[in-house]
Amino acid sequence: MLKNANQDMISSSELAERLHLNPPQIRKDLSYFGAFGTRGVGYPVESTAEQIRGILKLNVTQKAVLVGAGRLGTAIAAYPGFAMFGFDIAAIFDNDPGKIGTKVGKNTVEDIAGISIIRSRDIHLGILAVPAQAAQSVVDMLVGCHIKGILNLSPCYLVVPKQIKVVTIDLAMELGILPYYM
Amino acid sequence: MLKNANQDMISSSELAERLHLNPPQIRKDLSYFGAFGTRGVGYPVESTAEQIRGILKLNVTQKAVLVGAGRLGTAIAAYPGFAMFGFDIAAIFDNDPGKIGTKVGKNTVEDIAGISIIRSRDIHLGILAVPAQAAQSVVDMLVGCHIKGILNLSPCYLVVPKQIKVVTIDLAMELGILPYYM
Repeated sequence: MLKNANQDMISSSELAERLHLNPPQIRKDLSYFGAFGTRGVGYPVESTAEQIRGILKLNVTQKAVLVGAGRLGTAIAAYPGFAMFGFDIAAIFDNDPGKIGTKVGKNTVEDIAGISIIRSRDIHLGILAVPAQAAQSVVDMLVGCHIKGILNLSPCYLVVPKQIKVVTIDLAMELGILPYYM
Repeated sequence: MLKNANQDMISSSELAERLHLNPPQIRKDLSYFGAFGTRGVGYPVESTAEQIRGILKLNVTQKAVLVGAGRLGTAIAAYPGFAMFGFDIAAIFDNDPGKIGTKVGKNTVEDIAGISIIRSRDIHLGILAVPAQAAQSVVDMLVGCHIKGILNLSPCYLVVPKQIKVVTIDLAMELGILPYYM
């Protein structure tokens, strides 16, 4: 974002303000990974971003499979932010005969019954946008297909082997945080 | 969820497992708000959920305005999970003449130019599903309309007065957590 705004350097104070953290914490955290900045000057935006991308393994394209081609799924498939982090939605699956075979962006929706084909496609990330009651069975399929990380947008509790990392976004629960502060 | 599964009681151990917390923490946190459960038996599901809803101010219907009737916005408008927390998407605004006047669920998309009308509609929550470059100007409008809490789905940094609570969901950044663990 800073690069797009043609900002070359950023101080730990400005970073802290943008991230709602404190400047010493920013400096300490970054220093764990090496010397990024210059005292009194700050961090060079482009090279620091590149190094952080490397630390987070976001400096290579990561293919993801999306399951669920409903409203939320198609919105996600079209989401412009993923490319910024090097993500590529490389396949889309659904169980609805009315959706299978249709185009969503560059992908053609495939039949969930044939999802094991992704084993041969070097895909290790899954995005789940299915109804809550279908989520666990879909996750079991993904785990069987060597998926290692899952972004879950279904509002439900998922059981996975402990080597699989799951990030759940429950939109309603996030909105549910707000009234307490109002 | 437990109520729908006809489960009457839940132990702090089971709650802890489902929430990825530890049982003493669950018991301690709930005890701050009163005596909910019975030692050795657990918590009654329905009344405990009702009390937590009260604590979080989720026991009354909360109206929300959605800004952005694009793919993500319309997916959110149709999201079934909001009703569970008592949220009501009571108005939808966009600046696209092609969208203004169209129906999205029960709402008719209104012109963002007239958003100040929500001041008279008892709406204090906003949901933002607009492109990143439009987000700040929309937030400024919402703040001017007495919105007190904002769920932001635009991948950007928002500046708001400090009494306004913002929760940002950056879908790409959430997905971006996963490769580090793979």
